[in-house]
Amino acid sequence: VDTNGSWLAGELSRLGLYVSGRWVVGDREEAIQQAVRSAMSGSEVTLVTGGLGPTPDDRTRGSVAHLMGCELVTDPLLLERLRDRFLARGFSVLPKGSEAMAAVPEGSRVLPNPVGTAPGLALEEAEGSLCILLPGVPREMKGIFGKEVEPLLRSRFGDRLGGVVHRVIHTFGVPESVLMEELEALLPEDLGPVSLAYLPDPVSVRLRLTARPTVASPEPAEELRRVEALMEPVLSRYRYDAVSGDLAEAVGAALRRRGETLAVAESCTGGLISKRITDIPGSSEYFLGGVVAYDNEMKIRVLGVQDEIIRAKGVVSREVAEAMAVGAARHLGASVGVGITGIAGPGGGSDEKPVGTVCYSVVKGERTETRSETFLGDRSAIRQRAAHAALGLVLRTVQGTDG
Amino acid sequence: VDTNGSWLAGELSRLGLYVSGRWVVGDREEAIQQAVRSAMSGSEVTLVTGGLGPTPDDRTRGSVAHLMGCELVTDPLLLERLRDRFLARGFSVLPKGSEAMAAVPEGSRVLPNPVGTAPGLALEEAEGSLCILLPGVPREMKGIFGKEVEPLLRSRFGDRLGGVVHRVIHTFGVPESVLMEELEALLPEDLGPVSLAYLPDPVSVRLRLTARPTVASPEPAEELRRVEALMEPVLSRYRYDAVSGDLAEAVGAALRRRGETLAVAESCTGGLISKRITDIPGSSEYFLGGVVAYDNEMKIRVLGVQDEIIRAKGVVSREVAEAMAVGAARHLGASVGVGITGIAGPGGGSDEKPVGTVCYSVVKGERTETRSETFLGDRSAIRQRAAHAALGLVLRTVQGTDG
Repeated sequence: VDTNGSWLAGELSRLGLYVSGRWVVGDREEAIQQAVRSAMSGSEVTLVTGGLGPTPDDRTRGSVAHLMGCELVTDPLLLERLRDRFLARGFSVLPKGSEAMAAVPEGSRVLPNPVGTAPGLALEEAEGSLCILLPGVPREMKGIFGKEVEPLLRSRFGDRLGGVVHRVIHTFGVPESVLMEELEALLPEDLGPVSLAYLPDPVSVRLRLTARPTVASPEPAEELRRVEALMEPVLSRYRYDAVSGDLAEAVGAALRRRGETLAVAESCTGGLISKRITDIPGSSEYFLGGVVAYDNEMKIRVLGVQDEIIRAKGVVSREVAEAMAVGAARHLGASVGVGITGIAGPGGGSDEKPVGTVCYSVVKGERTETRSETFLGDRSAIRQRAAHAALGLVLRTVQGTDG
Repeated sequence: VDTNGSWLAGELSRLGLYVSGRWVVGDREEAIQQAVRSAMSGSEVTLVTGGLGPTPDDRTRGSVAHLMGCELVTDPLLLERLRDRFLARGFSVLPKGSEAMAAVPEGSRVLPNPVGTAPGLALEEAEGSLCILLPGVPREMKGIFGKEVEPLLRSRFGDRLGGVVHRVIHTFGVPESVLMEELEALLPEDLGPVSLAYLPDPVSVRLRLTARPTVASPEPAEELRRVEALMEPVLSRYRYDAVSGDLAEAVGAALRRRGETLAVAESCTGGLISKRITDIPGSSEYFLGGVVAYDNEMKIRVLGVQDEIIRAKGVVSREVAEAMAVGAARHLGASVGVGITGIAGPGGGSDEKPVGTVCYSVVKGERTETRSETFLGDRSAIRQRAAHAALGLVLRTVQGTDG
């Protein structure tokens, strides 16, 4: 109920549960109760997200307690923990609203919040249906789900979740429809118990393989491996491996494995490539730093790009991207350098170089790889796609293949 | 239905419509049809998102067409447009899956997609209920909603949407519960037709005021202004103005208004501050660039931070943050400089300086403002909160007040 539905739906399906949902807008107690009642009547577990915060429009806790016929009582341990968090943030007293967050439905189980203040709550109904309340802030909801709810569901439904097996393959540099066409040309029509789902996001496509055990093929994990092997000739050109799913993690692993160090010179992406690389814990092992040369003067002074190149070829050019990559590596003392320059828009485009034109270059020793592309979308999409493409080129260059 | 529910719910409520929703997981035609049927039976407009893409698991178009009793026909104009987009991306032929995206339910109206390939579709039912299909990619869904769906709904329901008035106030540097307590102390219990909603996200809190016209107060806009004026003594300490809601926009506007230029030196935030500043179109007018000095050597060489300061005070210290801010302004030739250094984790913490310790500093002429804070959360949250706090300090320093 409320927001967060699609993420929860994905997680619950992954566990092998059947899922449907509903949501309500507003904070009217009757509307919340009606939605929760209708959800609980048809299911064994109901997850409710949102409305657990400290303000008067956060009504979920009370509405569900009343629906279940119990009262709110203050949990002394929870109150203590809330107070500690506020002291740690430098506030001397716990605000009244936050105090209300320590009130929990009688008989409910508190699910600690690893990343925020509002805990999750699990309420057992007389008929054996379980109702779990989670905060609406996605990061907190996900934190509690992973640490508390998933183990709870596994222990409750373990024997019935079945042997559904999933595998997610991450790709970059290929549109969803092209990937699908290339894979279809390769695969037999009937994949047996294995099904494919294409999961695109603005910068890349994930491919999810799902296999359910059947009488004919009781080992779904083997079926998955068989289909994955069939796809390998296509996938090898696009795939990367990363536990987090982040291409920057794969880039980091490749650099670390080969003992390389990286420096970045960014113009149009304005720090996004550096940000993405440093999203990865431990990136200080291979990432020395970057320069955001938004102003031309900085490209010349800090990176040593020659003024003549800028004047002759234009600031958005393969030559300037290359000079920025060389400058980054040399000035910052790294073995691999990336340079990127382009027009993220909305202004600055021309007929010859429209908004979305981006040149990027990776240098490693004697090797230089440079690309010029036109990315579609608005300013944010162009920047995200350009940063992603540059990370992909770093990965392929460091790996020594460039497909 | 499907994902995107909470965003749509917010937009539709803003328009003054009553909203409820449901979603389904999977691509079974019957499940999709059941959800759409149940939604349409109780409402005048049904929005369906997702499942319009090029792959076989994208079943919405066909399922809804069959539900409404019509066939899919190829729209020649749409086919042409899809082909053009693929040519622009450098592909020579349109993949088969993408071709299927030109098939639309007979009699439906095509709602062009300003940022992607899959268009929206509007289907009129015999009983006068309207069903609108939108792609599931949030950026595309939002693009079509703003450009096509909102005008459509306004022209259809204009006279019945009523005079509901909203106002969103952006704040930073104050937790939700503290803001609430301070405002409650200031405001009368009864705000008449005005209601308040606190909308927290990981870095800040938005306050939304809503007023509906009543017989007693037929001018909700005036009621809003009255309540907002009452809150001003508290809000003035925390608020900022930005059309996009982004604090970086307010920072940019303040710099531009005063003719200042900015340079950034980042360590723990790894490019995030630069990224956020350059998210704003036109930021090249006041943003010269930044240095991501992830390695100590870079802090010394590129920013001119003295080695002795690092050794005496530690790299995460107020002194180093200050030296980085001064170095950024001086080396990059800007009138305002920001420096930030800290421990984003998960490693690198100590008893004295735990994970989350961040020092940041802003220099402007003779003035220096430096803060040391401990941010809670995981690596990503700490980096986001630290970057946000630093942007807030830039804003207050440039504005010449520091509340």
